[in-house]
Amino acid sequence: MILFYTMDLNEKITLINYLSQFISEKRKARFDEVIAHRTNHLRIVLEDLYQAHNASAVLRSCDCFGVQYVHFIENRNKFKISADVAMGSSNWLSITRHNEQEENTVNALRQLKQQGYRIVATTPHTNDVTLSELPVDRKLALVFGTEIDGITDAVRQEADEFVRIPMFGFTESFNISVCAALCMYELTTRIRRDVPQYLISEEERATIYLDWLKNSIEKSDAIIDLYYKEKKKL
Amino acid sequence: MILFYTMDLNEKITLINYLSQFISEKRKARFDEVIAHRTNHLRIVLEDLYQAHNASAVLRSCDCFGVQYVHFIENRNKFKISADVAMGSSNWLSITRHNEQEENTVNALRQLKQQGYRIVATTPHTNDVTLSELPVDRKLALVFGTEIDGITDAVRQEADEFVRIPMFGFTESFNISVCAALCMYELTTRIRRDVPQYLISEEERATIYLDWLKNSIEKSDAIIDLYYKEKKKL
Repeated sequence: MILFYTMDLNEKITLINYLSQFISEKRKARFDEVIAHRTNHLRIVLEDLYQAHNASAVLRSCDCFGVQYVHFIENRNKFKISADVAMGSSNWLSITRHNEQEENTVNALRQLKQQGYRIVATTPHTNDVTLSELPVDRKLALVFGTEIDGITDAVRQEADEFVRIPMFGFTESFNISVCAALCMYELTTRIRRDVPQYLISEEERATIYLDWLKNSIEKSDAIIDLYYKEKKKL
Repeated sequence: MILFYTMDLNEKITLINYLSQFISEKRKARFDEVIAHRTNHLRIVLEDLYQAHNASAVLRSCDCFGVQYVHFIENRNKFKISADVAMGSSNWLSITRHNEQEENTVNALRQLKQQGYRIVATTPHTNDVTLSELPVDRKLALVFGTEIDGITDAVRQEADEFVRIPMFGFTESFNISVCAALCMYELTTRIRRDVPQYLISEEERATIYLDWLKNSIEKSDAIIDLYYKEKKKL
C-alpha cells in the first residue's frame, strides 16, 4: 500500500494527473469544487460513541460543512457506522482511529495540541462560554463524548475551553449528532468569514485528492502498482 | 376528559393553583422557568417521517429551543417516537396529528396559514434563500419531508418560502433531525433577539401549564374530577 502523505508535492500532482483519467470530467469537477472548501481549522473528535447512527450522522455533517479531519477515540467502543445514515461520507473524510492502547484519550488530545489545536470540550462547566462566544482565531478540536455519560474526566483535564449551547427546555442535552452539527454550523460560518487561513494547504489537499481518487476508481491499487512499474522502466 | 383550552383564563389559573400542590416546589420552579421561554413564533411540521429516532431527535430539539408546537402530517407513515432519543420531550410539547383524511398536507398547511404562519419548505428551490437570510419578522411554520424523498409536491405548492442551508461537501443533504436543529438554532436565536412578540400569550401559557401538570401528576384525571365534584357542592 502506498502512503500518499509521504510523497513530495510534485509526485502527488503527477499521480493525480495520471489517475484523473480514470474518473469522469463531471466527477473531477465535483472533486475540485469540494476540495476548494475543505478546512482543517476545525476538527471533530468523537470519544467512545456507541450508536452507529449517531457517528454516521456526525460524519455526514462533517462532509456537508467541509470539516475534513475526524478522530475516533476507541477505549471501550469500536467505531461503527451505518451506511444509510452516513450516505458514503466516510469516503471523503480523513478519519484517524485512536485505539492502540487501553486508554487513548490523553495521547490523542496531546497529539492534537502539538499540532496547534485548542481542545474544546462540549459540555457545561463553571468556566464555559456559549457557542456563539467561542473565539475561532485559533485552530479548534471539538470533543464529543458518549451518548449517555458525555465526555470523560480525561477530556475534562486536557480541555483548553468548555463550550455550551444555550437551552430553554426540560431536556438537559441535545442528541450528540445534533450538538455536533450545531457547533459545526456556527463555527464554520464564522471561520469562513473571519479566518483567512482556514483552508487546507496545497500539500494536504493533494493527499486528500489522492485518497478520493483511490476510493473512486475500481481496482485503484492495481492501477497505481502498474503506474509505478511503468515508471521504473523509463 | 377535560379540554383545557376551552376554559377561560381565570378558570385555568384557579385549576393551575389547585394542581400545583401535587408537584414539588422544585418542579414548579422548573415549569415557570421553561414556560417563560416558550415560543409559537416558529412551528415545526413533519410530513410522513418514518424513522422513529429522527422524529424523536426533532422533538428533543424542539423542547431544547423552546419551540412548543409541532405538527405531524400522517399520510403514509404513522407518528412513532423512540423513548431513548426523545428523552421524554413529547410530554412537554403541543403535538397536533393530522391524519383524518387520506391526504392531510394541504389542509394542515392551510390551517397554519389561517393562523398567520408563513409556510417555509426546507429544500433547495430556484427561489430559495439561505437559512441566515430568511426573515423572521412574521410567524413561520417550517416543513420537513421524509428521509428519502423530502417534501411532497403538495408542500411545494403551498409553500410561501423555500430555505436552504449552504453545503460544501459531496453529501447532498443533511440528516433530517440535523437539518431541523440547524434551522431552529439559527431562527430562534434571531427571533429571541429581534422579535419582541415571540413569546406565547398568557392564555396559551395557561393551557400548556395545565397539560404539563396533568402529565406530571399521577392519576391527574381522577384528581381533576374530584376537584370539579367538590366545586359543584359549594
